[in-house]
Amino acid sequence: MERKIFEKRINRFQELLKREDIDGAVIRTLSTFVYFTGTKWLRPALLIPQEGEPTVIVAKGEAELFKQRSWIENVVEFQKTEDLMANVTIWIKRNGYSRVGMEFSVERDAYILFYELFKKLNPDVEVVDVRGLSMELRMIKDKWELENIRKAGKIAVKGMKVAEEEIKPGKTELEVAAEIMRELMLNGSEEPKVYVSATPRAHAEPFRDVEVREGSVVSVVIGADWNHYYANITRSFPVGEISERAKNAIDAMEEAYITSVENTKPGVRFAQVEREIEKIYTSRGLKEYYITGYTHGVGLLIEEDPITTIVVPHRAMEAKEGMVLAMVHAPLMIPEGAVKKEDTFILGKKLENVTKY
Amino acid sequence: MERKIFEKRINRFQELLKREDIDGAVIRTLSTFVYFTGTKWLRPALLIPQEGEPTVIVAKGEAELFKQRSWIENVVEFQKTEDLMANVTIWIKRNGYSRVGMEFSVERDAYILFYELFKKLNPDVEVVDVRGLSMELRMIKDKWELENIRKAGKIAVKGMKVAEEEIKPGKTELEVAAEIMRELMLNGSEEPKVYVSATPRAHAEPFRDVEVREGSVVSVVIGADWNHYYANITRSFPVGEISERAKNAIDAMEEAYITSVENTKPGVRFAQVEREIEKIYTSRGLKEYYITGYTHGVGLLIEEDPITTIVVPHRAMEAKEGMVLAMVHAPLMIPEGAVKKEDTFILGKKLENVTKY
Repeated sequence: MERKIFEKRINRFQELLKREDIDGAVIRTLSTFVYFTGTKWLRPALLIPQEGEPTVIVAKGEAELFKQRSWIENVVEFQKTEDLMANVTIWIKRNGYSRVGMEFSVERDAYILFYELFKKLNPDVEVVDVRGLSMELRMIKDKWELENIRKAGKIAVKGMKVAEEEIKPGKTELEVAAEIMRELMLNGSEEPKVYVSATPRAHAEPFRDVEVREGSVVSVVIGADWNHYYANITRSFPVGEISERAKNAIDAMEEAYITSVENTKPGVRFAQVEREIEKIYTSRGLKEYYITGYTHGVGLLIEEDPITTIVVPHRAMEAKEGMVLAMVHAPLMIPEGAVKKEDTFILGKKLENVTKY
Repeated sequence: MERKIFEKRINRFQELLKREDIDGAVIRTLSTFVYFTGTKWLRPALLIPQEGEPTVIVAKGEAELFKQRSWIENVVEFQKTEDLMANVTIWIKRNGYSRVGMEFSVERDAYILFYELFKKLNPDVEVVDVRGLSMELRMIKDKWELENIRKAGKIAVKGMKVAEEEIKPGKTELEVAAEIMRELMLNGSEEPKVYVSATPRAHAEPFRDVEVREGSVVSVVIGADWNHYYANITRSFPVGEISERAKNAIDAMEEAYITSVENTKPGVRFAQVEREIEKIYTSRGLKEYYITGYTHGVGLLIEEDPITTIVVPHRAMEAKEGMVLAMVHAPLMIPEGAVKKEDTFILGKKLENVTKY
């Protein structure tokens, strides 16, 4: 456990809390918890004061194992589930905090239930969303994070090779996904994400009753993780003879991919590149199948800030050195399938593809 | 799609809304969404008025596929992510609602982000937690649900057979989990849950760096789903020669299992059975390794109401005909591992084990 890396993260986050005049933060989302502590945990609960040492709250009997896996020294155990939030409240009261941060995220464990319980137990405390602050740090990766992402990239590529072997007419999406999942896990990915779609779907959680058909394009999205860090790769596989429209879409996607890779550099706004991609699709008569948002960050989540697909203001952001970006993210949703080619890149002095396939 | 089943569910839920004087409910948790619509979806959004037809909101281009997979006729598409909540707000304003239900759950998509956005867009609306109402219905299963759970049970048992073959000294938790996961998916489980622990851990998400060791007890928890309905099974496998303490714990767990199965009948309070189990562990000198909460419901979630482990008031509840319960849920956490034997049972006229192994 490289203690200094994590201490530095806490210190930088504390500076942000100070800047925003927030007394302390209650971190209850898994990815940010991992970012600061270095390990995942079932019910993440990390308390970061504006100044001083952070505290982690774990279940009875877990403190020893937690300390083996994390650098954090203040580890408090709770006996019953209801005591977890009681411990948070004691921490806030004892320190006299009035403005406390929480992350309003779309992930485990940013649940309404915990939030409402928190407000009930701390009626005089103002709750502030600090998701932007943690992501401000997390968007720029350090050397250690990049090593993990490179390793994750190698695992993701192994998964894609299995995908290529498995996709055959008559196989179901779920059968293909099963073999990819196994390969990723055998190579050390603890929380792999595998999406296989044999029909054009925006969300491609594999169905057991959808089969690969001749003439279609099957797309496979893989997120492999190593030490909780992800790499993300997508490929579309034509099955047998495909239509002219499908061929055109595959060629257009290749062009969009090259354009993205050539133009996404530190200092360039994502919206500028997006406009170039739109031009390609428009000139090929594919505008109607186009979805805005060609890139997103990759790190402790397979999709994190900047998220140009979902978060509109992120489209105006500039690419920065140290970002890790997946592109092309938005598929061309033609009737034959979701056409997409996506790799994960490190934005260093040069662009480095960690999922070369 | 058996339309009548789902319509009846909506009607019964509407009666509960009326009883509680709630104008309508915004369902944004995946499991309850599946309960009423019959299908999973990426961002579940279902609007149920106290009277009249329900509405579902999906992304642009998804309405057709959604209608193929669900009985619901009012399907509204949104173009941009930000339009989803705008559609919810229009529905509330148009109908003049002042008291609206949401579920404060610990699952996808009960996120603070959506909740805060909802309150911002609807400042005059009182938000009421309706998780208790949906679970009131979901706790008692109908014939169609039981068929799915039986099928899920058969898949879970197949997974456990693979577990038994794979557990050998030197294998990692993750390698064992990989083979089980593949088996479950190849048999049609779309969202399987697999937990393998070679050390005593309350949460047993498999680690890539923890190996099976001689003299330990490895426990494997499987949740297999069929049509979104789960069955849950757990077995503990002794590896090589184990200690007297471990043997004693395995025997005690067997006794607790038999006691649970014999005593959990319609009309019996869970706390009564819990006391019998506690007596067994105490008489065998294992009290210090005991955790309260021997049973929980199984259905659209691997763990749902009644949850006697986590939700204290549920311990005072009575078992009812039509419930599906997993027992023994709470492991004996001895240093050699987490000792546990758990099957999923239907409480009919007789108790039916759907994960017989």
